[in-house]
Amino acid sequence: MTRGSVFHMYLPKTTHAWVHKGTPCFDKPFGELLELKERPLPRLTPGSALIEVEGAPVNPSDMMFIRGQYGMKPQAGDIPGFEGCGTVLAANAGPYGWWLKGQRVSFGAQDGNGAWTRYAVVSIFSCIPVSRSLPVETAATLIVNPMTAIGLIAKARKHGTKAIVVNAAGSALGRYLFAIARWSGIEFIGLVRHAESANALREMGAKHILVTSEGDFIERFQNLSQQLDARVLLDAVAGDETALLMNAMPDRTLAIVYGQLSQGGGDGARSVRRVALDSDGLVFRKQRIEGYWLTHELHGFNGVFTPLLRARQISKLYQKGILATGPIAATSLKDLIPTMDQGVRDSKIVFLSEGLSYR
Amino acid sequence: MTRGSVFHMYLPKTTHAWVHKGTPCFDKPFGELLELKERPLPRLTPGSALIEVEGAPVNPSDMMFIRGQYGMKPQAGDIPGFEGCGTVLAANAGPYGWWLKGQRVSFGAQDGNGAWTRYAVVSIFSCIPVSRSLPVETAATLIVNPMTAIGLIAKARKHGTKAIVVNAAGSALGRYLFAIARWSGIEFIGLVRHAESANALREMGAKHILVTSEGDFIERFQNLSQQLDARVLLDAVAGDETALLMNAMPDRTLAIVYGQLSQGGGDGARSVRRVALDSDGLVFRKQRIEGYWLTHELHGFNGVFTPLLRARQISKLYQKGILATGPIAATSLKDLIPTMDQGVRDSKIVFLSEGLSYR
Repeated sequence: MTRGSVFHMYLPKTTHAWVHKGTPCFDKPFGELLELKERPLPRLTPGSALIEVEGAPVNPSDMMFIRGQYGMKPQAGDIPGFEGCGTVLAANAGPYGWWLKGQRVSFGAQDGNGAWTRYAVVSIFSCIPVSRSLPVETAATLIVNPMTAIGLIAKARKHGTKAIVVNAAGSALGRYLFAIARWSGIEFIGLVRHAESANALREMGAKHILVTSEGDFIERFQNLSQQLDARVLLDAVAGDETALLMNAMPDRTLAIVYGQLSQGGGDGARSVRRVALDSDGLVFRKQRIEGYWLTHELHGFNGVFTPLLRARQISKLYQKGILATGPIAATSLKDLIPTMDQGVRDSKIVFLSEGLSYR
Repeated sequence: MTRGSVFHMYLPKTTHAWVHKGTPCFDKPFGELLELKERPLPRLTPGSALIEVEGAPVNPSDMMFIRGQYGMKPQAGDIPGFEGCGTVLAANAGPYGWWLKGQRVSFGAQDGNGAWTRYAVVSIFSCIPVSRSLPVETAATLIVNPMTAIGLIAKARKHGTKAIVVNAAGSALGRYLFAIARWSGIEFIGLVRHAESANALREMGAKHILVTSEGDFIERFQNLSQQLDARVLLDAVAGDETALLMNAMPDRTLAIVYGQLSQGGGDGARSVRRVALDSDGLVFRKQRIEGYWLTHELHGFNGVFTPLLRARQISKLYQKGILATGPIAATSLKDLIPTMDQGVRDSKIVFLSEGLSYR
C-alpha cells in the first residue's frame, strides 16, 4: 500500500451539496430547482484539488446559472457556486499540490463542481492561497467580484479614458469598481436607480452619483459625462438603457456589457435579453460595444501567474482598507436556498460551514 | 497683373447647383428640400481645387444627408453630392496643384461643397487622377462604394475571418464587396430580401446567396455561417435583424454596421435608428459590434498616399474586369432631383454634364 492510498483512506468519499435537478427555469423558486443531497465526490483527476469548503457566496451569476441564463447550462446533478474558500485536503498536482495541501485558499469553481457543498473538487489553477487572518466572508468572495472589477478597470484604462460610467453602481461589484477606479486615478460616475442606493457609495467618497429615476437625469448625465470625457460605460443593465446612456456620452465611447439586469430580476417576466444601440453612434461617432466575462479572461491567462498576481493585488487592497467586503447575510449550507428564496435586501448571502473536521 | 489673376479672369465666378433649403425632413420629396439655383463659388482657399464637374452619382449617403440622418447636418445653401468626377480648372496648392491642373480626377466632396453642381470647390487631397478612358459613370463613382468596400474587407481580414456575411447584398456596394472578397480569397455569404435581387450576384459567380424572406432562412443561414466559420457581419440594415443574424453566427463574430436601412427607405416612417444585439452573445460568446464610416477612415489617413494607393488598386480592379459599374440611370443636372423623386429600380442614378466649356 502506497503512502498516497493510506492518506486517501481518511478523505471523504461523498459530500452534502445543493445539486441542480436539471430543468432550469426563470420564474420558479430556487427551492424547486435544487435539492440538498449526499452525492459521491468525483475522482481527483490530474490538476484537481479536494477542498473542505469554509464558505461560499451567492452571486448574481450563480442565480443566472441556476435559471439557465448563463454561458454554460446546468445539467442534472450539477452543484452551483462559482467561488468560495476553504482548506486543501488533497491535490493531484505534483509538488505544487503538495505545497498547497493544508493551506487555506480562495477558489473559483466551474463545470458543475461548484462551491455550494461541504467538499468541493476544483482545478488547482483556480486555488489562490490566502491568509487565515482574512475574514471568511472576504476570503470566500475574493474571486468573482474583485477579479471582475480589476479586469473591467484594466479594460477601461486600455481604452484610454480618464473617467468611467458604471450603471447599477449600487451593487457589491459597483463598490469594488469605485474603490479600484479611485485607486487607479480614474474618475467614477455611478448611476443608481433609487436615491437610497447611492448612500453606500457616497459614504465611500464617491462624488458623482446620479439617480436614473430623477426627471432631469439625462441632461445632468450628458453634461457630466461630456465634461469629464467619460468614454467607457460599464453596463450590467443592458436593454434600452444602453442606447439611452451611449447617446448622451461622448464620441469614441466603448460600452462593456457584463450583465443583463434589464431583463427583470424578481418580477418573473422573461424578456428578450437585448442590448440596444443607436446606429448613429456606431457609424458616425465611433462608439463600440463589447462584452466581458471573467471566465473568458481567466481562460485567456496562461497558467496561474496573472491570476495569482491579481489576487495578491486584491489581498493588499483589502489589507490597506481600499477594498472592503460589503454587508453580509450569513447562513448555513442547509439554509442557503431557503434564504435565497426569502430574499435579502442590500446584503450578499454567504453560507458558512458550521464545523470543519479535516484540519 | 500677375499671371494667376489673368488666368482667373477665365474662371467661372458662379455655378448652377442643387442647394439645400436648410430644413431636412425624412418624409418629404427631395424636390421640396432642394432647389436648383445659381450661387457664387467659394474662394479657392489653400489646399482647394476648382473642378468642372463631368458627372456625379446619387448614393444612399447623399439621401441620408439631405434628410438630416447623416453624420453632418445640412445647412441652408449646402450643395449635396459626396463624390463625382471632372476636370481640375484651378488649384491653390503649390506644385501639386499645378500638376493636377487640366487633369481628369475622381473626387470626394464634403462640408456642403458637394458634387451636384456644374463647378465644385473641393479639397485637393480628395482628388485622384484617373484615365480619360474610364467611362464617366465609373470615374464618378470611384470613391464612395469601392473605397468603402476595400475598407470593410480590410477590416474583415484584420479580424481574421475566412468568410463574411453581407446583409442587403443586392446593393451596388454589395456587388463591390463580393468582387473584392473573391479577389481577396474570402468566402462571401450574401443576404438579400427578395429572390430577384440575388440574380446579379449569382451571375457574377456568388455561390452563397440566401433570401431572408424565405421560411427556412434562419436555419440555413445558421448552418452555412457555422460551416464556413463566417465571423464578420457587414450590416447596412441594423435594427432587430442584427440581433437575429448575430445569434445564428459563430462565437467571436464582429458586426460592422455601416448603414441603417432598417429604419425604412420609402415608407416615410421615421423609426428609431437602433441596433439590437443579444447580450448573451456579447458577454458569453465574445461577439462585438462597431461602426464604419468612410469619412473617419479617410480622415485617419495622413495625406494622400493611402487613398491614392487604394484608388490605384481600384482602377486596376476595373481594368481587370474584377470590379464593374452596375446598371446606371443617366440624367442631367437639371433633371437629377425629379429623377430621384420618381425613383429608379435597381440602377444607380448618375447625372452627366451636357457640355463642358473649360477644356
